[in-house]
Amino acid sequence: MTTRALDDVRVLELGQVYNAPYCGLLLAAQGADVIKVEPPGGEIIRRPAVSPGGASYSFLMLNADKRGVTLDLKKPEGRELFLRLVEKADVVLENFSEGALARLGLAYDVLAACNPRIVLASGRGYRPGSPYESFAAMDFTIQAISGHMAITGFPDSPPVKAGATFCDMLGATHLFAAILLALRERERTGRGRALEVAMLDATFPSLMSYASPYLETGNDPGRVGNRHAVPGSAPYGSFPTKDGWVAIMCVTDEHWASFCEVCPDPLLADDESLRRMPNRGPRRDWIEERVAAWTRDLPRVELLDLLVPKGIPCAPVRSLGEALDDPYNVAQGLLRPVAVEGRGEVRVLGSPIRLEDEVSTPRRPPPRLGEHNREVYGGLLGLADDELERLVRGGVL
Amino acid sequence: MTTRALDDVRVLELGQVYNAPYCGLLLAAQGADVIKVEPPGGEIIRRPAVSPGGASYSFLMLNADKRGVTLDLKKPEGRELFLRLVEKADVVLENFSEGALARLGLAYDVLAACNPRIVLASGRGYRPGSPYESFAAMDFTIQAISGHMAITGFPDSPPVKAGATFCDMLGATHLFAAILLALRERERTGRGRALEVAMLDATFPSLMSYASPYLETGNDPGRVGNRHAVPGSAPYGSFPTKDGWVAIMCVTDEHWASFCEVCPDPLLADDESLRRMPNRGPRRDWIEERVAAWTRDLPRVELLDLLVPKGIPCAPVRSLGEALDDPYNVAQGLLRPVAVEGRGEVRVLGSPIRLEDEVSTPRRPPPRLGEHNREVYGGLLGLADDELERLVRGGVL
Repeated sequence: MTTRALDDVRVLELGQVYNAPYCGLLLAAQGADVIKVEPPGGEIIRRPAVSPGGASYSFLMLNADKRGVTLDLKKPEGRELFLRLVEKADVVLENFSEGALARLGLAYDVLAACNPRIVLASGRGYRPGSPYESFAAMDFTIQAISGHMAITGFPDSPPVKAGATFCDMLGATHLFAAILLALRERERTGRGRALEVAMLDATFPSLMSYASPYLETGNDPGRVGNRHAVPGSAPYGSFPTKDGWVAIMCVTDEHWASFCEVCPDPLLADDESLRRMPNRGPRRDWIEERVAAWTRDLPRVELLDLLVPKGIPCAPVRSLGEALDDPYNVAQGLLRPVAVEGRGEVRVLGSPIRLEDEVSTPRRPPPRLGEHNREVYGGLLGLADDELERLVRGGVL
Repeated sequence: MTTRALDDVRVLELGQVYNAPYCGLLLAAQGADVIKVEPPGGEIIRRPAVSPGGASYSFLMLNADKRGVTLDLKKPEGRELFLRLVEKADVVLENFSEGALARLGLAYDVLAACNPRIVLASGRGYRPGSPYESFAAMDFTIQAISGHMAITGFPDSPPVKAGATFCDMLGATHLFAAILLALRERERTGRGRALEVAMLDATFPSLMSYASPYLETGNDPGRVGNRHAVPGSAPYGSFPTKDGWVAIMCVTDEHWASFCEVCPDPLLADDESLRRMPNRGPRRDWIEERVAAWTRDLPRVELLDLLVPKGIPCAPVRSLGEALDDPYNVAQGLLRPVAVEGRGEVRVLGSPIRLEDEVSTPRRPPPRLGEHNREVYGGLLGLADDELERLVRGGVL
């Protein structure tokens, strides 16, 4: 058993849905002791009443390698127990709505009074103090307000969200990095801090391809389907083959030259003016029609076999099933099979950050509701069994 | 001047396009000395020949707060100078294609022989050793192969990419966190390490909403436009108003109850069976038609004023211009105005991670090509002016 970068870090995760739970997953994957603290009924996406074995598949995917306890923070005894846990922890991680923690009497200054080394990390939709502070936020609403829906889809269709929950995940990953920064700072100062990462902020840089022309010229490129926001790159898009689509992009003159070596269309290869990118932009409709006329009759794999060795950026447009059933995912530890009581084998998420050469199996399956109550409240805080029973009866755990 | 978490870290950034440059931006924002090392002609998206002032707007947006030097790594003297910089650095950050650094004679073992504390951080499309190792990768091709295009768009349209370059940015943010982990580990071991983050891996968790039903049931939900992948949540979607769309999502029974308090349609509010989520799913077409019939006649702001105080997740579907021109961006330091020679005022990106209360202005504008050659090669490595001139003449710088 090798040591890992966060072996000495304990996290209390008050996470719900995707944002903070994914951040907790990233922490746990590096060896942190992540204790997921759920209300006695379970966090929102656990949905114990309607899920076989007492937990939804989404919950299971995001919460392996964590310990799980229950606690009603709205009860005075629950709050008190939480503060005793804070004394033994390094990080409190939460993504309640703005102000919720303070209303529970658990604002940062209260936590810091218990443990000045504590880092309070909050995933938010928007920055506190901003005009949107009071907006309840989830991935979809951030895609809407951020401008990302406006730049997604075909020109003749309404704005559409990405299927990817990239706002949650970008928020969570920036939050993870912010926690690591705060732990580094703590080594120097001896003190923790409160920090927030807003999903709106975390997704702002992903507007780049549209923001740069807009800020430079004031012109909105509009929705462009699978094309490049700025005309110039061609071919750039999703091209039909005999058995599915292939994404192809020529964004340099070198890509184009390589493309012409494999594409047998003399109207493309022999046209000297097309060898310079500024001349391809105005003719991209025509170029891409010619390209499609070629790709249409090829099997997808054959087209890729021609393009890949030439260094032209390309990839199959895979279906969800193709993408998920790819052995790559298990081989790289992105999906990890684990036995879950009442469920059989479940494939849970792993971290994209893998510092070891070898892929590891989950150290523990996702926790059942309150599974580690005795281990944590007994072992860590020293509560006796009869005391635990009393707390369960009183609805505190 | 306060100290910052990465004040003591020096980074050599061999970044191009968005991925590693965004990671470099995140490092620089925390005080790291990021030295961007470009080939003598500039990195790919600088495009000096066709850009006013010698740099494209995209390049400017991503590279403030960095120093910039030129260096031809393909020349023996260039490689040698780079290794002398490695001796003075903590991190080498790159996103060349797989194997490129090794072909330059700059594999990790060579760097570590110069400086065993060096961290080599590589942004990749795919994991080295995987079946896709040889695929040239960019954001668009990762959206294609990852399955994200297949889950984006309307059911009757082909797969479409998100306008967001979320694959680049998720790759970069995970890479940033991985660097922080390696620096933490180095404090214990005294040694750096090589690490890679693949964009395909970094975007995998964002499949969550579609992966969980697929892995649980084997059924592909298909493209669902702005709806939820799994029927049950209703209303959930983008609803028309008098002056634009509004995203609304009721994903709990509490949301629904609150919604019925503001939506005046008695057919919704008075139907007791609809109060439980499992009963709303099968009737979502009808529910959402009723909702749209109500929202259609309201101004967007009025609808939001009704929904927001009720805690119902909602947001305007903003245009690109609305999103970019929002004063929020400058107030939160996401866009930072800075004077750039030959360009006037340019708005460059800031980091979504802000540990200070106050928004800071850029410490320095994006570097001109080779702007800090003398400062870095002279100041850091002690090269004399005539030696620098000789290197410029020889095309090494």
